[in-house]
Amino acid sequence: CETVQDDENTMSILVASDVHLGYIEKNGERGKDSFVALEEIFTIAKERNVDFVLLGGDLFHENKPSRKTLHTAMELFQKYCLGDRPCSVKVVSDQAVNFGHTSSSITCVNYENPNVNISLPVFSIHGNHDDPSGAGELSAIDLLSVTGLLNHFGKQTKLDVISLSPVLLQKGTTKLALYGLEKGSMRDERLHRLFLNHLVTMLRPKESLDDWFNVFVLHQNRSKHGATNYIPEQFLDDFFDLIIWGHEHECLINPQWNPIKRFFVMQPGSPVATSLCEGESKQKKVAVVKIRGREMKTDIIPLKTVRQLYVENITLADGVHPPAGSSPEAIEALSQAYCEEVVERLLLRAQSQKSGHPRQPRKPLIRLRVDYSGFDIFNAYRFGAKFADRVSNPENIVHFLKKSVKKIRDDLDVKDMDDLIGAEVVENVKMEDLVQEYLNSKDEKEQMQVLSARGVSQAVSEFVTKQEKDAIKELCCHQIKKTKNYLQEQTFNLDQNEIKEQIKSYQTERLKESSTKESQELKEILERTK
Amino acid sequence: CETVQDDENTMSILVASDVHLGYIEKNGERGKDSFVALEEIFTIAKERNVDFVLLGGDLFHENKPSRKTLHTAMELFQKYCLGDRPCSVKVVSDQAVNFGHTSSSITCVNYENPNVNISLPVFSIHGNHDDPSGAGELSAIDLLSVTGLLNHFGKQTKLDVISLSPVLLQKGTTKLALYGLEKGSMRDERLHRLFLNHLVTMLRPKESLDDWFNVFVLHQNRSKHGATNYIPEQFLDDFFDLIIWGHEHECLINPQWNPIKRFFVMQPGSPVATSLCEGESKQKKVAVVKIRGREMKTDIIPLKTVRQLYVENITLADGVHPPAGSSPEAIEALSQAYCEEVVERLLLRAQSQKSGHPRQPRKPLIRLRVDYSGFDIFNAYRFGAKFADRVSNPENIVHFLKKSVKKIRDDLDVKDMDDLIGAEVVENVKMEDLVQEYLNSKDEKEQMQVLSARGVSQAVSEFVTKQEKDAIKELCCHQIKKTKNYLQEQTFNLDQNEIKEQIKSYQTERLKESSTKESQELKEILERTK
Repeated sequence: CETVQDDENTMSILVASDVHLGYIEKNGERGKDSFVALEEIFTIAKERNVDFVLLGGDLFHENKPSRKTLHTAMELFQKYCLGDRPCSVKVVSDQAVNFGHTSSSITCVNYENPNVNISLPVFSIHGNHDDPSGAGELSAIDLLSVTGLLNHFGKQTKLDVISLSPVLLQKGTTKLALYGLEKGSMRDERLHRLFLNHLVTMLRPKESLDDWFNVFVLHQNRSKHGATNYIPEQFLDDFFDLIIWGHEHECLINPQWNPIKRFFVMQPGSPVATSLCEGESKQKKVAVVKIRGREMKTDIIPLKTVRQLYVENITLADGVHPPAGSSPEAIEALSQAYCEEVVERLLLRAQSQKSGHPRQPRKPLIRLRVDYSGFDIFNAYRFGAKFADRVSNPENIVHFLKKSVKKIRDDLDVKDMDDLIGAEVVENVKMEDLVQEYLNSKDEKEQMQVLSARGVSQAVSEFVTKQEKDAIKELCCHQIKKTKNYLQEQTFNLDQNEIKEQIKSYQTERLKESSTKESQELKEILERTK
Repeated sequence: CETVQDDENTMSILVASDVHLGYIEKNGERGKDSFVALEEIFTIAKERNVDFVLLGGDLFHENKPSRKTLHTAMELFQKYCLGDRPCSVKVVSDQAVNFGHTSSSITCVNYENPNVNISLPVFSIHGNHDDPSGAGELSAIDLLSVTGLLNHFGKQTKLDVISLSPVLLQKGTTKLALYGLEKGSMRDERLHRLFLNHLVTMLRPKESLDDWFNVFVLHQNRSKHGATNYIPEQFLDDFFDLIIWGHEHECLINPQWNPIKRFFVMQPGSPVATSLCEGESKQKKVAVVKIRGREMKTDIIPLKTVRQLYVENITLADGVHPPAGSSPEAIEALSQAYCEEVVERLLLRAQSQKSGHPRQPRKPLIRLRVDYSGFDIFNAYRFGAKFADRVSNPENIVHFLKKSVKKIRDDLDVKDMDDLIGAEVVENVKMEDLVQEYLNSKDEKEQMQVLSARGVSQAVSEFVTKQEKDAIKELCCHQIKKTKNYLQEQTFNLDQNEIKEQIKSYQTERLKESSTKESQELKEILERTK
């Protein structure tokens, strides 16, 4: 839109997401990539003189970032966000409601705090990596917000019904209502169900409803990972003008028009490739969104310090033609030579596509997805060692796969090789699902009686991914207490066997309850998608 | 000294130490005690209008404080240390040297940072609980310093020679040279040795040497825990006017005059009882030290929100006199009744000694050290349950001991029962010593060949007390690499047995080296103490 100019009525916002600070921080080669990316984002924000930075979650990679990562993040915020530049965007909503959810000491947006001198405000929701956990239900980004370095918005405290109160921002005549949805520890399925049941409500400004430009920031699965564990765009309210979709790492930041809902969707993606897949190999970008009244204009800005990533799918059978009677060693040598050729070609491409930015890392990431059907695999580690000086991931350049016979289900959106090739799917299996499957596969005799497989798998997940040392203990205490209470209510003078029976029937009851809920959901979905 | 008045030439400093933020934070009763203590310290500092707060280390209890503890600490610093009050103490030394040791982004004392508005400056060294660890060698207090909330001084980076550069402070005509000694991960023994060998140097201001009031803050063992793992006062330079001694939890904050060294020693102690011993049961206090020129005056201020602690040593044989032929049950009932009587007496005393401060916790800590010689022990947990509503530590009110026959060594300073009663000594045994003893006690066949018992015990300690997940892995990698290098240098074409021999002789060599060092130290000590 050409009417949007830089003037006192135009709000300009740098949009980015999923910086994953501290990602593989101990890797000597790549450990600093996430911090370099944040510095570039902040530098662009300052050069473009934006009013604020808006982040879509997963600022930190680990739920409990290391001290070093926290410290470096704080240094960067200190360096780029403090200073004498005045902020001309006013917050006209209740600031304590918007930002004070985790600490009563936060009563306003950071740049109105008289004790901290903010030049570049940052607004962020948390993501699934840096979601709240432990005592006080705090996220790692709350350590930035309590020290006045970041404005954390969008926190939900209820699990059964969600009502979102926007941050209302005003610059001159332009009014922006900023909604954030943080699911916290809520599973995608549950949020999906809340949307289905119309239990997610957007609060609207009382006055001059049509003057507001409405932005919704969320951090959820956007691609289908199953029937219910993603959020379809059609779930979202159509009064929104712009959706900023965090969590998905592929950069699709050019606003995509949804003609049914009549809003734009921007998916900033991540500046750091946390998995070596095709989606991550696309050019990484951020955007400056300029809003004037209800009009919007977007400048897309490629990031120049991001480590290059090239992913190539090859099939040994296509490129390797050993003469009949070749020895296994000779065939292996040919396979390796073929793969080396591809790596060399990708390295040449990387060289020619360098951004020229002095901080762009010299060594790219290279990933060959090698279909080796009909061949033997070779030592991928030794293969990679040859490129140790030129590739930043020599240990895993080659990834061997075999085309699986897995049937492609028509009802799933198959976007890339990952859905086709069985071996790769393993990478996406969640540990908690494995635990649950394992526990459920036990003989009846060996099955747990007080705990549920689902509860244990979730507690194990908390323990491992969030390093919540007490998660399993707490689950056990909770469930034992609940079962004891049930027994006290239900039973009078039972002998040991009868108590066992009662415990069993209590568990069956609980299981039935939760599966009824799930089947209801499925029914609703089916009805809706008809 | 009566010449010290509040005027523009008088520097006034609130002195405290060992706040141990986050101590047993999950304890519903006592988990907040450390935070209440810090609030009281800050409140006193503001009421007394001091120029700054000076802390002697162990601000945090855990090396890796929980997110909740960090967050609460930051909230408190935000609440009490930010604001519009000007600070009239100037730093005249090189501020980047004083405070920028952990981050190049810290270039000055926090109240000269134009982007943070400090009303109450805090200066602190770290202690043994919050000492630096992990990547970047950062302490938990560095997260406060990088966000401008605290001035972290006294960091040493070298392990072989220490030279302390003071923070030079000036207010009007008064000049204060503030020295801090942080040993980091250095063992007390090593520091002891450095002092003995005159490898600890205090840098002095170049001009008007005699005008400076010299304060030394250290966080070390002050009481003898053995021949060399403490720092005797006579090791310290005699140009100091005041020593502030952190680490020891007993409050001995009234300045003690050392007539030989001609300096005062203040031991602030800890406001939170982390062990239920006699030293901790003394009244907890802080001090306001006023300095004018080379004169000093001290106001001692009792803390009013500290949880009361009463420790009493009783001997069942003294108070329980069962009639001849009493049943064991009857004797137990009498023992319990005797103990209950003592608890009731202590509770009455606690009631009468309440400070009257609304935030002082209602329930005191009570510890009976019960010498049960000649009697059976009873269930201490069930005993405590009777006092659950009136005592904050019902689970461990009673501590059973037997007078041990352990010989009291004349060369040790025996201050309290702990040194006399064998059972109690176990509490003070260090886990790393146990590991080392265990490993050394193995048969020769089972002894480790590449690692040393000392190395493993230290790595285990890092792993457990600092939650350094990679400590053991790193030790193994380091030692294997060193041994490999040694073998490559020493050997040509050895067979397997010969290699084993070489590894063994290498280990013996290393052991000899380190024990030579130790015996040298002992010799030096003996010579010195003659």
